[in-house]
Amino acid sequence: MSTQTADHTDIRATNLAAVLGHLRRQAPCSRAAIASGTGLNKATVTSIVGDLLDRRLVRETQQTQNHVGRPATLLVLDGSAYATIGLEISARGLTALGCDTAGEQILRWHRAGPGVDAGPAKTIAALAALARRAISTVQSSGRRVLGITVGVPGLVNREGSVVLAAGLGWRDVPLRAELAAALGRPDIPVTADNDASLGVLAEHLYGPLAGAANLVQLTGDTGVGAGIIVDGRPLQGNLGYVGEIGHLRLIPDGPLCGCGRRGCLEALASLPAILTRVDGTIDDDPQHQLDTLIRRADAADAAVTDALAEAGMHLGHGIAAIVNLLNPEAVILGGAYALLADHLTPAIDKALREATIAPDAGGCTIVASAFPSTATPLGATAQALTPLTQGRLPAG
Amino acid sequence: MSTQTADHTDIRATNLAAVLGHLRRQAPCSRAAIASGTGLNKATVTSIVGDLLDRRLVRETQQTQNHVGRPATLLVLDGSAYATIGLEISARGLTALGCDTAGEQILRWHRAGPGVDAGPAKTIAALAALARRAISTVQSSGRRVLGITVGVPGLVNREGSVVLAAGLGWRDVPLRAELAAALGRPDIPVTADNDASLGVLAEHLYGPLAGAANLVQLTGDTGVGAGIIVDGRPLQGNLGYVGEIGHLRLIPDGPLCGCGRRGCLEALASLPAILTRVDGTIDDDPQHQLDTLIRRADAADAAVTDALAEAGMHLGHGIAAIVNLLNPEAVILGGAYALLADHLTPAIDKALREATIAPDAGGCTIVASAFPSTATPLGATAQALTPLTQGRLPAG
Repeated sequence: MSTQTADHTDIRATNLAAVLGHLRRQAPCSRAAIASGTGLNKATVTSIVGDLLDRRLVRETQQTQNHVGRPATLLVLDGSAYATIGLEISARGLTALGCDTAGEQILRWHRAGPGVDAGPAKTIAALAALARRAISTVQSSGRRVLGITVGVPGLVNREGSVVLAAGLGWRDVPLRAELAAALGRPDIPVTADNDASLGVLAEHLYGPLAGAANLVQLTGDTGVGAGIIVDGRPLQGNLGYVGEIGHLRLIPDGPLCGCGRRGCLEALASLPAILTRVDGTIDDDPQHQLDTLIRRADAADAAVTDALAEAGMHLGHGIAAIVNLLNPEAVILGGAYALLADHLTPAIDKALREATIAPDAGGCTIVASAFPSTATPLGATAQALTPLTQGRLPAG
Repeated sequence: MSTQTADHTDIRATNLAAVLGHLRRQAPCSRAAIASGTGLNKATVTSIVGDLLDRRLVRETQQTQNHVGRPATLLVLDGSAYATIGLEISARGLTALGCDTAGEQILRWHRAGPGVDAGPAKTIAALAALARRAISTVQSSGRRVLGITVGVPGLVNREGSVVLAAGLGWRDVPLRAELAAALGRPDIPVTADNDASLGVLAEHLYGPLAGAANLVQLTGDTGVGAGIIVDGRPLQGNLGYVGEIGHLRLIPDGPLCGCGRRGCLEALASLPAILTRVDGTIDDDPQHQLDTLIRRADAADAAVTDALAEAGMHLGHGIAAIVNLLNPEAVILGGAYALLADHLTPAIDKALREATIAPDAGGCTIVASAFPSTATPLGATAQALTPLTQGRLPAG
């Protein structure tokens, strides 16, 4: 029932997006291979490739391919002219990742803190400082920054404001606007999004399950959230408040959650909940505390493996709700869950199979993320590149 | 990241679909209005309208419109040549609905039984008899049947087989294949789908919220299921097993569900669960039992209103899980829930607001369906029309 029609500007953008997408998945490839792979005619491909060569978004390699007739020059994505920057705010600290338009990482930095108690103003100031340094580094590599996207564990509205991030103690923080103001670079678009939504975008583009049409990524480092790909596209919902599986009530009158309710999945199976259960508290250095947890789990420390099995059972019930509703191909355990996957997965699988109505959990598999610490900022670099991947060339 | 490109056949189909869609929403309208509404140029619109006139999918009215220059002939959809048939199997009986390509209902029949105990073979035989009669009626109106779709309360795979319909007691029933074989009309395509998925399609196309990009319809007449529209399109998932909110576990160790688990939403708040709670049993005539329930509720019979308030609370928690994950614009109460909406909605709203993490339930409203008894077969007629709405003309 789409009203989308095909006028000439749209067709040019659609086709440019198709050529770039084909190159991203298949390069190196010839113009003829792009034409046959996209269904476009050769004249159109040649014209589009010409534009992309002019903008240094594509380059010719020295390689040629020789099937029949004269040898064909092979093309690859060119990352020498442009890059995007992805940022992440989490309870474990701040991360910046720079990625050029060929998908190569230019920089990847993590800094601890400023800590949940610091409040949004200090955190945004620290994030802006990190972003400014990232912009400088990208620029000194000769590339222009096409955009910056920041991921945050909470509800983010369409204006990029954080409506609620219980795990950070944030409420109604105009993150996008304040970060943009602190950067003072009106030439660089800034956007903000939910961390899990960006994380699943990284999986969808770059992970072992890249291209799967229905994919979920679950993270629990701060709160518990799900990033969701439906029918090949990121789920957005009416106002952007999607994937909030963390507040599914699993146990009426269960333990108190940061949201004020009781028995939420987040209160039972987030990383902070697991650490609190095992150690009685959250340390000043949650990264070290996580490392210790993993070591104890790997050493079969019963207090830890029991806690993880119980968390896994709760996660399995939460995942079952997602699977019963959305029937994804896979649920990817992201962040710390990926590092703990060997210990969580048996209990998750058991609860999932018990609680899913479709046979064999509807074909859904549970897998560990290939990007346990960088899925969100990596997805953020891709999100910041959206105008280009939709076929709109950077302003000259 | 779509790989869809625009070759000439695709463009023709896309544009034909856009012209038909514009006419469906806006008719009567002129060729010029279609051009400006779809963004297509006038020559393209004239050519497509010519094809549609030839096939009697569109007709010119006697009306004209006179802005500037010569009067423009107005066009409307023409339903005189083709129709589709939608069928529904439910615990309350069998329904057939015929709809022409202009959206006019040609027939609408309901028959009670053959009852849940009859088993799939008898039910499919009765459905085929009903469908044969519907085909005759459509044909004697001078129209060709373009397709038949049947909705069933259960998991339906991509081949149209019912993997599980707990409320009917069906498991692994090749519904589509057996209905097609019983009809013996290879010229008429038959498909099968989940009842709630078809119901939400009717709401999305014809209801007061038509066109809403993110919409859910909840029914509980047999089991409890959700039909889901995401980003303007029906949610399909990996294997088609979507919307199964009925088996969300709300109360660990709660009442036994037909699926063998305990404390499922379906065991607490489906129509059969409500009737059983109020009357102690399900009658032979569930339609009469429902009518009695509604009368008693309207008369403020405390046993009934208490049962409905409790069911509403459980439904609110189930809906909250959907809202937290998908952030729809509205959740539509379908089937018997629509008839009971006045009694269910206050408790649903209260639980929903308490259990949703986004403020104001993420902007989601709870509304009663405008099609309490026909959403599924109406959606089924639309589903059967999919090739045409996607721009593929019927074979000549």
